[in-house]
This record gives sequence, C-alpha cells and structure tokens, in this order.
Amino acid sequence: MNYAEMKPAQVRQLIREGSITGQTAGMCNGYAQANLCVLSREYAYDFLLFAQRNPAACPVLEVSDPGDRLLHTIADRADIATDFPKYRIYVNGVMTEEVTDASAFWREDLVSFLIGCSFSFEGELLSAGIPVRHIEEGKNVPMFLTNIPCHPAGVFHGNMVVSMRPMPADQVVRAVNATASMPKVHGAPIHIGDPAVIGISDLQRPDFGDAVTVHPGEVPVFWPCGVTPQAAVMAAKPSFAITHAPGHMLITDIQNTALKY
Amino acid sequence: MNYAEMKPAQVRQLIREGSITGQTAGMCNGYAQANLCVLSREYAYDFLLFAQRNPAACPVLEVSDPGDRLLHTIADRADIATDFPKYRIYVNGVMTEEVTDASAFWREDLVSFLIGCSFSFEGELLSAGIPVRHIEEGKNVPMFLTNIPCHPAGVFHGNMVVSMRPMPADQVVRAVNATASMPKVHGAPIHIGDPAVIGISDLQRPDFGDAVTVHPGEVPVFWPCGVTPQAAVMAAKPSFAITHAPGHMLITDIQNTALKY
Repeated sequence: MNYAEMKPAQVRQLIREGSITGQTAGMCNGYAQANLCVLSREYAYDFLLFAQRNPAACPVLEVSDPGDRLLHTIADRADIATDFPKYRIYVNGVMTEEVTDASAFWREDLVSFLIGCSFSFEGELLSAGIPVRHIEEGKNVPMFLTNIPCHPAGVFHGNMVVSMRPMPADQVVRAVNATASMPKVHGAPIHIGDPAVIGISDLQRPDFGDAVTVHPGEVPVFWPCGVTPQAAVMAAKPSFAITHAPGHMLITDIQNTALKY
Repeated sequence: MNYAEMKPAQVRQLIREGSITGQTAGMCNGYAQANLCVLSREYAYDFLLFAQRNPAACPVLEVSDPGDRLLHTIADRADIATDFPKYRIYVNGVMTEEVTDASAFWREDLVSFLIGCSFSFEGELLSAGIPVRHIEEGKNVPMFLTNIPCHPAGVFHGNMVVSMRPMPADQVVRAVNATASMPKVHGAPIHIGDPAVIGISDLQRPDFGDAVTVHPGEVPVFWPCGVTPQAAVMAAKPSFAITHAPGHMLITDIQNTALKY
C-alpha cells in the first residue's frame, strides 16, 4: 500500500480497523498530523490556559466537548479513541500501558486536546530546499529540555522542550522565514546557535528522540516542541491521562498549506 | 496634553488616577489597545474554549489568574480594575451601571480576558496608504450582526459580529495583505463585497457603532469583530460580568508591529 498518496479518511479507516498500528510519518503527503492529550474536565481549563500562555510550544488545533469522541473541525467525524495507531495510558502521571484502541478507557468526563506538530513545517523546509537531517538519516528528531521557563497555568508548569535541526549558516534565514508563517505548528525558531544559552550541554545527548549528525560549521536551530505540554502534564501527575504514542499521530483533513497565515 | 505621544504606562497612570475617563482612540501611537471581558471562574473554561474555537473574532492576548487584578504580559503590572477609563457592570446579562473604577466590584473568583482590537490593524491600513472611512469622518466603526454562526462552546454561542470598512476595489487586495499578518487582532477579512451574502440588509443601519459614507462603486470589506464574544457573553446571561465601555480600552505595552507574524 502507498500510504503517502492515500487520503486521510482512508488511512484513518485502516487505523480504526487495526490494519495500521505503526508510526504515521510520511503518510498522506501534504496533510497535517496532530498530537493528542486527553484529560478529565477538572484539568481542562488549566491545560487550555497553559496552551494560551505558551502558544508556540502548545498550538491547539481542536478541543473536544467533554465525553465527545468525535472530532468536527480538523478531521470530520474522526474517532479520537480509535483513529490514532497507538495510545499511552497514564495513571497518576505514570504510564501503565500502550494500546492500539483507547475505547475501553473512554469516560464521559474526558476532554481531548489536538495539538499541532512540526511534521507540517518540515514539508515547508524541504520545499524551500533545506534538507532536514533526521529525515535524511531515518531517525526521530532530537529533542531537548531547555532552561526556558513556560508561563505556568494552574497545576501545569515546566521548562520548554525544543526540537533541533542543524543546517549550514546560509540556510538559517530561509528556515526562519519558511516556518514563521506557520504558528499553528510551532512557527519560527525559539533559538539559533549556541546550545548552552538555552541550557543544553551536549547536542549528541538529546532528552527525547535520536541524536543526529551535526557537521563542522553547521548551526543548530531550535524550535518549540509539542512534547512541552506532555511533559508539563506528566509533571502535574493528573489522576488519568491519555496521549498518542510518539510518532503515532492522527492524520487530519487539514492541508499543511492551510495552516499558513 | 499630547496623549498620542505619551508612553502607555504614563497614560495608564492618568487613567488610574481618574484624570482620563474618556475614549482612548488615538492615544499612545503605535501601541495596541485591548478589550476586556471579566467573568467568574465557573464560566472561564467555556469562554476560553469559545475563543479557541473562534480565534478570528476572539483573539485572546492575556488571561488573568482568578482574583488577580494585575496583568503580567501585555501591560506589566497594569491594574485591570482601574486602568480602563470606563467599565460596564452586568448582572444576569443586564447592564446595571457604568463606572470609571471597578475595584468595588472585584471578587476572588473573577477571571479577566484581554482581547485584541482592530485599532491595531487600522494603523497598518493607513500605513499601506488605505484611508479608513470612519476615522476620516470622526465616527465609530460600523458593526453588523451577521448570519455566520460561531462555533459554540459550553454556554456560549451566537453569530459573528463584523466591522465594515468601505474602499475602492483597487485597495482591497492591499487591505487583505496588510491585515492577514495580524491574526492576534482579527487578521484578514471574513467577507468582501455583497453584504446580503452574510445576512446584512442595509449598510446604513449598523447594529453597533455609526454608519459611514459608502461612495458609489466602493466595495465593503468585513472583518471579524471583538464585539462577537461580548454579544455571546451577554446572550448567555452570566450571573455577573464586567466589560470595558465601548471605545474605553486598555493601552498595552505591546507595539502593534510586535503583533505581526
């Protein structure tokens, strides 16, 4: 099957049936993918406020009504509990299991937050002629916990997590321009250059994802990362939460180009 | 006093002291002004979700913590209860009084929402060489209730309110471009041309604000308006609410140019 050329609704159906349970990278070329964070209603205001105060790290694409498993805006009638290939279940901040169908865990008090993902702007980078190292090397993007504090909101607080893409100095300005017009998928970089300035001691030891090659003279460029809200949620140890498993995203009906201002 | 050239903190001090109680249009050239909606905590999640689902009409610039009268992001240490020239007090959806100091009404359960205002993008229009008719004529901008439904959220629902600026056809594209890059202050137009398409029967009878001259051959251009969330709030008849009085805004420390992507 050529998943890259399929329509999002077709791939979501295969995922719903359990025919696809792996990572979604490269599926449905041109369509945005989304991260998931599901919390009980009692935490929903604090989380939405955390997102409002930290929009670069936590760009919210859609919020469900309590108990509603269906999406209505970014992926019409997608089922939140079945249309991601894999989920992680957290109890009191500890991951208890991974499942390919979260239906059995659904409750009437759950609110789902769908969050933009940097997969969307990587397409823009490639279109602008900027190679993306972790794609070249077949790896997950390297991510780092920084010393940049998020604006706290209620029970949620923590430092920003960033993703890093190295590039020759003469590509940096184009990379800024290509991503700045896409704030719903993290937008412009948060830092360019010396990792130590934002509290990163070793680019070869990422906190999440994989290390990638940084050639001599290349400049590391750092973007706000959607792992930031997940880290803030885990640190707050809510009684119950569901997230997607890393790389196992929802494929939306929104084209990446529609996310540009 | 030349309020246009003063710094925001100076004007806010004069407002706080009661030396300024009138409209803020034209004060502190280049700085963004903000709308206010204050609700009790029980309504805060629904309101923030309404804003998330209707970002063009309801661009949130800052949300206070419950009971906190001070702002921390858009106007450092501004006092929400005293730094607007005039407030409206609502009980069960009915306006009961206008006051120049809302301190006596403050409660520990109140959450304040500061919302972006089209004053910011009118500066962009003027800079792009596009005359703004209601400024030329010394009037308030004409605003209309449309047939465009907002996405409901909890107790809040209603149709979009728009502001209208007429212009010659050859200025429309420039007006779209000048405002599209400012989504935090309503962004691009929602409709261009025939008012009937969005449920407006007579451009000379606005639902809010003043009628302005539309010359023969001019095209009416419609933008999402910050009156939309206020109308949704009033329709929901919350037990208590505070808003700014029309035209009596907070002057922020944020320069309009900083609101551009």
